[in-house]
Amino acid sequence: MPQRNDPVESPTAGGLDRRALDYTASIDYDRRLYTYDIAQSIAHARMLAKQGIISTNDAEGIVAGLEEIRGEIERGEFPFRQELEDVHMNIEARLREKVGEAAGRLHTGRSRNDQVATDMRLFTMDACDGAVAAVRRLQSALLDLAEANREVVIPGYTHLQRAQPVLLAHHLLAYFEMLERDAERFADCRRRGDVLPLGSGALAGVPYPVDREFLARELGFSRLADNSIDAVADRDFVVEFIAAAAACLMHLSRLAEEIVLWSSAEFGFVRLPEDFATGSSIMPQKRNPDVAELARARSGRVYGHLVAVLTVLKGLPLAYNRDLQEDKPALFDTVDTLLPTLDVFAAMLPSLRVDAERAAGAAADPSILATDLADYLVRKGLSFREAHRAVADLVRYADSQGKRLSGLALEEYRRFSPLFDDDALRLDVQAALAARDVPGGTSPRQVAAALKRARQRLASNA
Amino acid sequence: MPQRNDPVESPTAGGLDRRALDYTASIDYDRRLYTYDIAQSIAHARMLAKQGIISTNDAEGIVAGLEEIRGEIERGEFPFRQELEDVHMNIEARLREKVGEAAGRLHTGRSRNDQVATDMRLFTMDACDGAVAAVRRLQSALLDLAEANREVVIPGYTHLQRAQPVLLAHHLLAYFEMLERDAERFADCRRRGDVLPLGSGALAGVPYPVDREFLARELGFSRLADNSIDAVADRDFVVEFIAAAAACLMHLSRLAEEIVLWSSAEFGFVRLPEDFATGSSIMPQKRNPDVAELARARSGRVYGHLVAVLTVLKGLPLAYNRDLQEDKPALFDTVDTLLPTLDVFAAMLPSLRVDAERAAGAAADPSILATDLADYLVRKGLSFREAHRAVADLVRYADSQGKRLSGLALEEYRRFSPLFDDDALRLDVQAALAARDVPGGTSPRQVAAALKRARQRLASNA
Amino acid sequence: MPQRNDPVESPTAGGLDRRALDYTASIDYDRRLYTYDIAQSIAHARMLAKQGIISTNDAEGIVAGLEEIRGEIERGEFPFRQELEDVHMNIEARLREKVGEAAGRLHTGRSRNDQVATDMRLFTMDACDGAVAAVRRLQSALLDLAEANREVVIPGYTHLQRAQPVLLAHHLLAYFEMLERDAERFADCRRRGDVLPLGSGALAGVPYPVDREFLARELGFSRLADNSIDAVADRDFVVEFIAAAAACLMHLSRLAEEIVLWSSAEFGFVRLPEDFATGSSIMPQKRNPDVAELARARSGRVYGHLVAVLTVLKGLPLAYNRDLQEDKPALFDTVDTLLPTLDVFAAMLPSLRVDAERAAGAAADPSILATDLADYLVRKGLSFREAHRAVADLVRYADSQGKRLSGLALEEYRRFSPLFDDDALRLDVQAALAARDVPGGTSPRQVAAALKRARQRLASNA
Amino acid sequence: MPQRNDPVESPTAGGLDRRALDYTASIDYDRRLYTYDIAQSIAHARMLAKQGIISTNDAEGIVAGLEEIRGEIERGEFPFRQELEDVHMNIEARLREKVGEAAGRLHTGRSRNDQVATDMRLFTMDACDGAVAAVRRLQSALLDLAEANREVVIPGYTHLQRAQPVLLAHHLLAYFEMLERDAERFADCRRRGDVLPLGSGALAGVPYPVDREFLARELGFSRLADNSIDAVADRDFVVEFIAAAAACLMHLSRLAEEIVLWSSAEFGFVRLPEDFATGSSIMPQKRNPDVAELARARSGRVYGHLVAVLTVLKGLPLAYNRDLQEDKPALFDTVDTLLPTLDVFAAMLPSLRVDAERAAGAAADPSILATDLADYLVRKGLSFREAHRAVADLVRYADSQGKRLSGLALEEYRRFSPLFDDDALRLDVQAALAARDVPGGTSPRQVAAALKRARQRLASNA
Repeated sequence: MPQRNDPVESPTAGGLDRRALDYTASIDYDRRLYTYDIAQSIAHARMLAKQGIISTNDAEGIVAGLEEIRGEIERGEFPFRQELEDVHMNIEARLREKVGEAAGRLHTGRSRNDQVATDMRLFTMDACDGAVAAVRRLQSALLDLAEANREVVIPGYTHLQRAQPVLLAHHLLAYFEMLERDAERFADCRRRGDVLPLGSGALAGVPYPVDREFLARELGFSRLADNSIDAVADRDFVVEFIAAAAACLMHLSRLAEEIVLWSSAEFGFVRLPEDFATGSSIMPQKRNPDVAELARARSGRVYGHLVAVLTVLKGLPLAYNRDLQEDKPALFDTVDTLLPTLDVFAAMLPSLRVDAERAAGAAADPSILATDLADYLVRKGLSFREAHRAVADLVRYADSQGKRLSGLALEEYRRFSPLFDDDALRLDVQAALAARDVPGGTSPRQVAAALKRARQRLASNA
Repeated sequence: MPQRNDPVESPTAGGLDRRALDYTASIDYDRRLYTYDIAQSIAHARMLAKQGIISTNDAEGIVAGLEEIRGEIERGEFPFRQELEDVHMNIEARLREKVGEAAGRLHTGRSRNDQVATDMRLFTMDACDGAVAAVRRLQSALLDLAEANREVVIPGYTHLQRAQPVLLAHHLLAYFEMLERDAERFADCRRRGDVLPLGSGALAGVPYPVDREFLARELGFSRLADNSIDAVADRDFVVEFIAAAAACLMHLSRLAEEIVLWSSAEFGFVRLPEDFATGSSIMPQKRNPDVAELARARSGRVYGHLVAVLTVLKGLPLAYNRDLQEDKPALFDTVDTLLPTLDVFAAMLPSLRVDAERAAGAAADPSILATDLADYLVRKGLSFREAHRAVADLVRYADSQGKRLSGLALEEYRRFSPLFDDDALRLDVQAALAARDVPGGTSPRQVAAALKRARQRLASNA
Repeated sequence: MPQRNDPVESPTAGGLDRRALDYTASIDYDRRLYTYDIAQSIAHARMLAKQGIISTNDAEGIVAGLEEIRGEIERGEFPFRQELEDVHMNIEARLREKVGEAAGRLHTGRSRNDQVATDMRLFTMDACDGAVAAVRRLQSALLDLAEANREVVIPGYTHLQRAQPVLLAHHLLAYFEMLERDAERFADCRRRGDVLPLGSGALAGVPYPVDREFLARELGFSRLADNSIDAVADRDFVVEFIAAAAACLMHLSRLAEEIVLWSSAEFGFVRLPEDFATGSSIMPQKRNPDVAELARARSGRVYGHLVAVLTVLKGLPLAYNRDLQEDKPALFDTVDTLLPTLDVFAAMLPSLRVDAERAAGAAADPSILATDLADYLVRKGLSFREAHRAVADLVRYADSQGKRLSGLALEEYRRFSPLFDDDALRLDVQAALAARDVPGGTSPRQVAAALKRARQRLASNA
Repeated sequence: MPQRNDPVESPTAGGLDRRALDYTASIDYDRRLYTYDIAQSIAHARMLAKQGIISTNDAEGIVAGLEEIRGEIERGEFPFRQELEDVHMNIEARLREKVGEAAGRLHTGRSRNDQVATDMRLFTMDACDGAVAAVRRLQSALLDLAEANREVVIPGYTHLQRAQPVLLAHHLLAYFEMLERDAERFADCRRRGDVLPLGSGALAGVPYPVDREFLARELGFSRLADNSIDAVADRDFVVEFIAAAAACLMHLSRLAEEIVLWSSAEFGFVRLPEDFATGSSIMPQKRNPDVAELARARSGRVYGHLVAVLTVLKGLPLAYNRDLQEDKPALFDTVDTLLPTLDVFAAMLPSLRVDAERAAGAAADPSILATDLADYLVRKGLSFREAHRAVADLVRYADSQGKRLSGLALEEYRRFSPLFDDDALRLDVQAALAARDVPGGTSPRQVAAALKRARQRLASNA
């Protein structure tokens, strides 16, 4: 247990009650910031020496000590101590053991407030890069699957009712588009968060001639935070990352839902191979789409983190408040949920076995061509509304007869419009597909072009 | 890495791709259910033997093996294995190592679906008991603080503007009431969740003559789940627990906010002792109320879990879906957030040093008696609205003169109502307190009675 | 525009800037509280007279005036005015027009803070009653549908994979159970919220000899709020109502999802009649389950309100803050979403046409009996794990042969276990159903009993 | 009540049960899309004529009819009908009354799915523009306030404890920065959402030679949606707008909290004038910051909408589902909450009366210079950690003596470090401010430059 009046150990938590310490310590989770914290401290030490605020000798000792510490952490040998609260104080205390009093000079012109903000921004910028890369891998897997199944036709659905036939590739490209926006949002988040807090001190700036531009260059920031109070109080970049992740996981929850549907006995459009299907403890026949189900569920997890962080920030007066520590569990778990979900989809998609025949069978449901019948009548001169009504009545008639559209005779068609002719009965799925030859449409020509564009976009992003 | 066709090891995840396994395995967190899982399996084995479904010999071996396993887990010696997915399969596989083929009979008439539902209900029932107990401890600390400061007067606030004087004890009792409702909600959650799923099988019930009443008695459930599909698909008890925790933490966020305010230099009503105040890495004078700040923030964390679980359940078809696995991180972290927050408040409250003088000074702000002046005029015959208007004008006048109400002369009062007399100038805080002598009011008499009632309520709950 | 110094009109918002007034006024939505506000004011006036605080004459005038006002509002003739902010001030100002100065006496011993808390509790208690009644109506519709389709068998699903056959009635009874818990939660909310705030004044109690017990009796409250500060600051009853509604809508979102699935061409278990299916503006064949889709979506709407109210309350210092006004839009819209959703389901369920043949066809999928095959082997002496493994291998073999289980010969079965005999091939859905004859199971006997119990429960609640 | 078989009236809801119609109709709220819907239909009609899909005559009639309808709606004369479900069908039906059969040709090559997506994007793009403009107005008001109070010093706070003195202008500029990011996010949302869905049909594209580029130009879109399925299923732009609004309102909730704090008796840094302060129904002295309180609370409202929309989208299979209709209440209310909040702040800020003296008094709290004392010792050669410890002990000593730092004698300082000299006692607030002369710091020089930059930024955005 920490002893009061033990200032060497912890200048901040030295006299804390054990229960208060346990409640407030963050070392269990903020230790993962160590790499950023050490990089920052190295840059800070160099800058302090460069500016003559500490001696070159001290700076060199500090840098060497910090590099040793990095090694210790990487090798799992670092003695993390709960009573030192957080990663910053753990590293500083260890540095003191290594380099003595010089360690005490490292915190010159810096506060934990700007220090942790700097670490968190570096972490988030990396997380953005990681998210974009994982999104690209999944886009690539989607493209592969689309290209491998170029000819496969499925029923397009609205309201989960069969609507119009579409190419599976066209359907998969819809997800490509969603992911494209996701990647953009992560890039926007990175760009906006790419601002150096260091030099803002506790909240007011620091009374030393620090060189913030130097720090920014060393640490890879493009700009300086323009206002020291904002710099320590702002967590927009965390909110924005989690919001982007929530949107991305929402997209994946939709894809997951479709994988669950498609691999059901009722749809049967895809089959999960054993390495991506889970068995049951009791039912020997089961091949469950657990990966998709968990991905679907984990959108909720990240929605929750978004709510958590927004709630934490609601109504907080400036500048730093300890509440901000709660940004970490939410952000870290968001990253740990998002990236594996993107990656497991990228791994799973290539293994899906598409049952083109089953899909084609479903897409051959004659009612799916009802719109085309209406459009047929429009081409013969009816207004769309009249045509729609005539076909709706025809469908209702077929239904009342217990027949499908394709089972009706031409004279039955003609009861609903004299404009129907033999060729109306020859409308088919391929014609319906080919007819939708507008930009963005599902005609094979458009889809081929879209696949090509998508491939090029990916290549240009690589 | 798991080998395919290794059915002994895992009847469910044997052939899974490593990435899928890592994505779906829950052993890292569901292992904390072990105590419930083992208790359940022991009860199940005994019941199977009692009903003649397995032999007594097998049951005895199973029970002995499970007790050994419990010991291994408690001593940290249990070899948890990721490729066995979850706590259930880990324990079953280990049991097989201990008792051989008999282990394979334990899963007769049981599925993981009813098994995990049973574990989760047992966990939640315990969590409810734990929450009620922690709430009681905090109520007790509130009462102690209130009783120790019976005479202390503070300004009551509305809109954070001084409104009317109140006893600090009265103010603290408001939190006692909130916590009373919290305890009730946890008790309601426990009562409603106290239903045995076991015997529901995968979803349809089991084709063995199991004795569910026996199981319920052994495991401490009051009732049987009435519908096997609901039994495996329901997570209402998780939602309800987290909702109750969210409300409770909302209450604590309000108390936390007040501790932050009251310990500011501007309010100064309480002082945090060093063992509950944290220092700054840079500002030597700081005594920060970090515990209160983190508690305030952690309401957001649990709000997030509530959203997560509700989102997970939204739109799920019956019965069990793997999505339900996501109930665990949310529920476990809610418990791990709620109980320590209640406990750290119970620890911190006794250490608060109330500055009665500072509080009394604030409560002596003459404007705080404006309502009493209006009520004075009502007693002299004005309608409340006229009286309110006259005093509002008086206050506006004092303000325009740069004076406080107590600095005005009687003739100035009389400009706004001729009914003012000398005794109007003698209204004071004590009179204002004493006047509010209705049930629930802040008069010393009412508050003394309320403290007594509260103490009795606590005693009767102990 | 309101004129400053116009105290008759508004003692509270008289001098407000128009933009501030527009931003803060709540009359557009809180007017729906009028019936509670008037009932409360009548009770308050009577109590004031009974206690000699105002004259009987004044009280009679006030009561008569308020009754006139109620009539005006009911007839849509009441001149609501934005510059009077809220329903309370609108009614008070109108009362003044009718009865003159006596109106100014009505606010004696009352503040808007306890007044609005009283109105909101009355509203919420009625909303709980309304929710329970609507839940009962839907339970009744579920029972009707279950009873009308007693013999219908569907595949039970886990992970949306066919798992084991169940009776449709059993499946529907799972929703009956969920709704039973919902009704209990609304009743708990009502019971806990049934506490009179009136008499708490602004926050400290009132300096008049009010008779709170009388007020409680008049207004139908069972208990008095025990602490005046809590009474004006508490909105737990709003949180609890919305949380109960969120859980209820979550249940309905699951039922909605199933209606969407079941009415798809792929499942085809039910057919929506035209009066509950919506057409498409373009596709003549569509019969979309829009009601179910919107119900599914509206769970999100109420989840949002729950987050809104919890966020509003987070970190609010005591006692009343204007933030609390935001409880109303969230609560009102929750009621307006919940009750119609329950009612539209109760209307829609009787119209569903179940396709028993289609469902039976799906339930006849031979793989659905795999668990029963394993249980068969257990009865022949294998441990469940061995039996599970043998059947899993058998299923995998059938799959590799492109056959269904029912298409294999006995000798093929025997390759996986010599215990298989002719009777194994005769396992069928009816036998599987009948075998699950444990309490809560899907056997026809159990389901018949459950239907009877459910009907009795409903009757006893009526 | 709608009659079945009344296809002229409603091709989509003609036979709906009244309860289903009431549950699904959106005309009460989607009517506000009329201006976009009419603009879109005009562009569509012109394009159809240009492409020879309908006659020029028909197109002219349609356009003229639509313009008449626009006039009717603007004048409040349009006969909205619930049984026509939504704004699209109401306008189409009215058009038929005006131009007869030609109206039936307008829906050629268009579905409600792409139609409503187009309307919603146009609405959101305008909302983004409106949000950016409102943000700019508020930034301008912040700058005005900052410039008008250039010299005012307040205590900067961390953990709501006085930390270091800062210029009020510097503090206000922190909000300027937050708003700058908000404006960027709305602009990003607009840019990403600026994609034309029209031409996507129900989900698959349309079988007519439509000219989507023409449509985009007419309607002010920069790009075409690249994938027809995504075009009708995507609501990212709604999620992104609400997420940006949630972040913006979170910022305003922080400013609101500070206005509440600052206008309390305890802080007293600002005073609300009567036109932005609300009175109490009972306490005549009150000047409540209701505007700020409501703004603080309304962050919760928009957080709720964000949760609502994310929940709605979770797990939805492609393409259009009626669930998407729930985007509207959430989006519309977000706009109606956000813009007035920005505007009312812009109106209120100029009216705040800053009490420079009171603020300066608080900033003169000697403990606020403790960091500067530590930095003083650093300049004399101590390491920062030693200096921090020495000053912390000094502060603790002063506290134990019941004195403030400024009340200690030099020899008392020297007990804690011999490096203290006379000049240590002369450290003052102005020196502390001036010392923080790093980019982003609070020194008067830096703040003057920041004000200038901010003004320029605003000007360049105007």
